[in-house]
Amino acid sequence: MKHLWQHCHAATMKAGRYSIIEDAAIITEGERIVWIGPRSELPERPLQSTDLGGAWVTPGFIDCHTHLVFGGDRSGEFEQRLNGVSYAEIAAAGGGIASTVRATREASEEELLASAIKRARPLLADGVTVLEVKSGYGLDLDSERRMLRVARRLEQELPVTVRTTCLSAHALPPEYAGRADEYIERVCHHILPALAEEGLVDAVDAFCEHLAFSPAQVERVFQTAQRLGLPVKLHAEQLSSLHGSSLAARYGALSADHLEFMDESDAIAMAEAGTVAVLLPGAFFVLRETQLPPMDALRKHGVNIAIASDLNPGTSPALSLRLMLNMACTAFRLTPEEALAGVTLNAARALGMADSHGSLEAGKVADFIAWDIQRPAELAYWLGGDLPKRIIRHGEEL
Amino acid sequence: MKHLWQHCHAATMKAGRYSIIEDAAIITEGERIVWIGPRSELPERPLQSTDLGGAWVTPGFIDCHTHLVFGGDRSGEFEQRLNGVSYAEIAAAGGGIASTVRATREASEEELLASAIKRARPLLADGVTVLEVKSGYGLDLDSERRMLRVARRLEQELPVTVRTTCLSAHALPPEYAGRADEYIERVCHHILPALAEEGLVDAVDAFCEHLAFSPAQVERVFQTAQRLGLPVKLHAEQLSSLHGSSLAARYGALSADHLEFMDESDAIAMAEAGTVAVLLPGAFFVLRETQLPPMDALRKHGVNIAIASDLNPGTSPALSLRLMLNMACTAFRLTPEEALAGVTLNAARALGMADSHGSLEAGKVADFIAWDIQRPAELAYWLGGDLPKRIIRHGEEL
Ligand SMILES: [Zn+2]
Ligand SMILES: [Zn+2]
Repeated sequence: MKHLWQHCHAATMKAGRYSIIEDAAIITEGERIVWIGPRSELPERPLQSTDLGGAWVTPGFIDCHTHLVFGGDRSGEFEQRLNGVSYAEIAAAGGGIASTVRATREASEEELLASAIKRARPLLADGVTVLEVKSGYGLDLDSERRMLRVARRLEQELPVTVRTTCLSAHALPPEYAGRADEYIERVCHHILPALAEEGLVDAVDAFCEHLAFSPAQVERVFQTAQRLGLPVKLHAEQLSSLHGSSLAARYGALSADHLEFMDESDAIAMAEAGTVAVLLPGAFFVLRETQLPPMDALRKHGVNIAIASDLNPGTSPALSLRLMLNMACTAFRLTPEEALAGVTLNAARALGMADSHGSLEAGKVADFIAWDIQRPAELAYWLGGDLPKRIIRHGEEL
Repeated sequence: MKHLWQHCHAATMKAGRYSIIEDAAIITEGERIVWIGPRSELPERPLQSTDLGGAWVTPGFIDCHTHLVFGGDRSGEFEQRLNGVSYAEIAAAGGGIASTVRATREASEEELLASAIKRARPLLADGVTVLEVKSGYGLDLDSERRMLRVARRLEQELPVTVRTTCLSAHALPPEYAGRADEYIERVCHHILPALAEEGLVDAVDAFCEHLAFSPAQVERVFQTAQRLGLPVKLHAEQLSSLHGSSLAARYGALSADHLEFMDESDAIAMAEAGTVAVLLPGAFFVLRETQLPPMDALRKHGVNIAIASDLNPGTSPALSLRLMLNMACTAFRLTPEEALAGVTLNAARALGMADSHGSLEAGKVADFIAWDIQRPAELAYWLGGDLPKRIIRHGEEL
């Protein structure tokens, strides 16, 4: 049954620009868009129709980098730090990422699912229809599996499409202290193949940084992913320049993420490989960083730029992707158009799903948001809060 | 009819601290709290009761500094700036605050009300039960009156308590270009007395800054307010140090607001006068300022610290007061407890209503929020998004 959506304007985000259609009409059939264009050019008049009351329609938002599934609660640690307790003291008391790993290992699948649902709800309410979820707090086969199973189950529990990323090379688990190469061997020969075999892995990620894994170790993970036929991504250049983003590009990575310390040579490599630059302004804000990602180089070489929440308990407890648009504009000086492309088409590219998602075009999945705003820039302009909207997913209004 | 609220913990914010009651019970009668304490010490068992399911209860949030009522839309200008158009070019084209003044003057009362309601809704949904609203974009008697009438009408239209502030000394209206003293005369002898006479003014504010009004001009406004029996507030030390906050303290001001450039002498004066320091992290963020308010001096001298959204179209289009808690902690290094006091008891003090609002105590108005969180610090910890909650206003659940 075809359905007509009309009395709206559309920022279709085709080709990563606003690509505006004023007084637009959209025809959906099942979960797909079958036609979109100016209402005056409607090719047919489906019996069923919805009046969107002059709303601005955008593609559903895609949050292409989250650590949504985790055990425990770091708000107490957040408070301790602001009360003057040092990072070293918190680490000595078992805090930091170690506490999240411990709590995640101890949590049952149902507990992890319940807390993940609670965090996913505000993201979805704010316009997210596709969500990437990483493992990386389990750091052993059973716990990593549990995280990824929870990620998959979110798709049953909530109106959202989920892409899973195996990030077992996120941090060194305590039982491997001083034996990073051995842990990477474990990841490559045991954890990753097993999880891939179980169909739990859509992509493979790693954390390339002095305090995590070296480029050589990351490369072994990438080679394993290649052997398994899985695309790769990388946490790179967040705190220093190891040229992880160039390494990622050499492996045809879907994305390199963070990137504050990348340089022009990395931008050239990424542009050539089609690797998306995923910027994470939430972590930048929380960590009070000052090194900005090199926007000029990214633009000059035509690297596609995405924006994500990086939702995680330590450095970005962000529950709104739209807030990240504002932060990307305010802190990184993206334009509102770039920011919107960053949570739609370019975020779809960062997940390897731009053929079906990320813009409003015939043939793509009918995930879209009808916002009660006067112009698309408002999506980046307002700071926090909930904007009135209607959410349409798979051709049906939620 | 008395009503019992139980199965909750309370951060009562008495004396501006968490002042936690675990397993608390609250008895309300009409719009007041008549008893609060540990459930084990309940003095009676009202017939009616509500189970809050283990929630954390806090006072309703008080947003003590907003420019909620305005005409027009500055999101286009926001976009222009990010596309490289300079402030000077925007000003030359009639943009900036001048465009808001023009649009506000042109808007009808109904139009101003409709847009203000739209902006107030997300603030209220996020936990605000008391809202201060300033005039200051009309800058002539009729338009300032219209703004304040809209502010008063918000209280009828929405479940919120409103305090109005006359900020006619916000900016120099174009028709007074080069004649600031004449405009101040107009404010003191015409606008303020007329609006006060009509009962539209709960407090008087001004903007003390090189680009606005001098301390001498502000003082004339304050003297007028004194004559009219109205308390004063001041926008001070946002961009430079003119010791407006000390001036405000000399007039026993309820608050001095912004304050990034204040110094220790100002803190001493404010502490002695009981003038609240209202910090506005949204504007700090949007303007990418780097000068931090002197937290050490404020703490050392015991100045009460409040936090507000500063909701305004130019420098803080903030629709969430809870986001301001996070920003105050992250950027200004407030503790979550200080931040929570800043939107409850100290915000009530900044509005001169701490006798009836701002903490959960017998005799105060029963405005409170039951948050589905594990500890109060979560209110400052999460970055954006909507936290699940129940809102109780005047003793009734919304
Ligand atoms: Zn991450
Ligand atoms: Zn203000």
